[in-house]
Amino acid sequence: MDMEKVNSMDFGEFVDVFGNVVERCPLIAAAVWSQRPFSNSEDLEKHFFAFIDALPQSGQEGILRCHPDLAGRELQQGTLTAESRREQRGAGLMSLDAAERLRLAELNAQYRARFGFPFVLAARLSDRAAVPGELARRLQRPPAEELCTALGEVKKIGRLRLADLLGAAGLAGP
Amino acid sequence: MDMEKVNSMDFGEFVDVFGNVVERCPLIAAAVWSQRPFSNSEDLEKHFFAFIDALPQSGQEGILRCHPDLAGRELQQGTLTAESRREQRGAGLMSLDAAERLRLAELNAQYRARFGFPFVLAARLSDRAAVPGELARRLQRPPAEELCTALGEVKKIGRLRLADLLGAAGLAGP
Repeated sequence: MDMEKVNSMDFGEFVDVFGNVVERCPLIAAAVWSQRPFSNSEDLEKHFFAFIDALPQSGQEGILRCHPDLAGRELQQGTLTAESRREQRGAGLMSLDAAERLRLAELNAQYRARFGFPFVLAARLSDRAAVPGELARRLQRPPAEELCTALGEVKKIGRLRLADLLGAAGLAGP
Repeated sequence: MDMEKVNSMDFGEFVDVFGNVVERCPLIAAAVWSQRPFSNSEDLEKHFFAFIDALPQSGQEGILRCHPDLAGRELQQGTLTAESRREQRGAGLMSLDAAERLRLAELNAQYRARFGFPFVLAARLSDRAAVPGELARRLQRPPAEELCTALGEVKKIGRLRLADLLGAAGLAGP
């Protein structure tokens, strides 16, 4: 994988390309640019994750709060980011029936009230049949453990988004 | 000033209202929500500033990199945030002639190349006549001092944006 192109980007280009690796947190990509050059995609990913891990708890919660609900208001209103829209569509969350949408809305509301951040899940590794059960399960967990799990999902999402970007034409090596 | 309404906001409302107090960094407002309730506007501001100060240098540089150039590409393309557009227009930066625009573009490029972040200035406290001279002056400063100065400008911008929001109908007390 050719990182030469990545390492040659000025910060404006870098944030344009990698700004949504962490949903609605271009600040993180903008910070990671300070760590260039990157030796490979694992190294680039490592710096994204290290930045997340080094934030105070409020900052980690802040990252989660920049995420949309699954099958929530932003999906209905068409205001999801392109990445989130693709992921939620791929998981079948755009074709729920009314009863499924209502069930998920209730669970999302309970989760937000309990933890103070939205339910975050790497939708590409799940599907519409599994989401409500997983949400109900995580709703029962202790807050400190759940923060950890949720940040783990942020990283899974980031890893998949990075793989998409680094595999794209002009970035991949021979 | 009535903070009751602010303190009653869920995180979604809070980020909708305060998400651009720091330009394109909703993560910061989302993190600050963890510190509620706020006793007054100074207290709210204090938490924004404390979050900025606690970031590692790469994160502070990241904040700066989320800012647009003054009279730059995003102004030309109409992709500024509403707040930044208002501030740049107020400073007269939308009515530069071609020679002024070129001069500023050259200085902005030199600044970005030297410091690795864009020139940030609280435009509402300046004007089109003063900006090029201030930019040329700051271009000469040592990088560590300039990072400090630039973050000071981020805070001035944030203070003014907070004052706008807290003074708005429905938020101000009797």
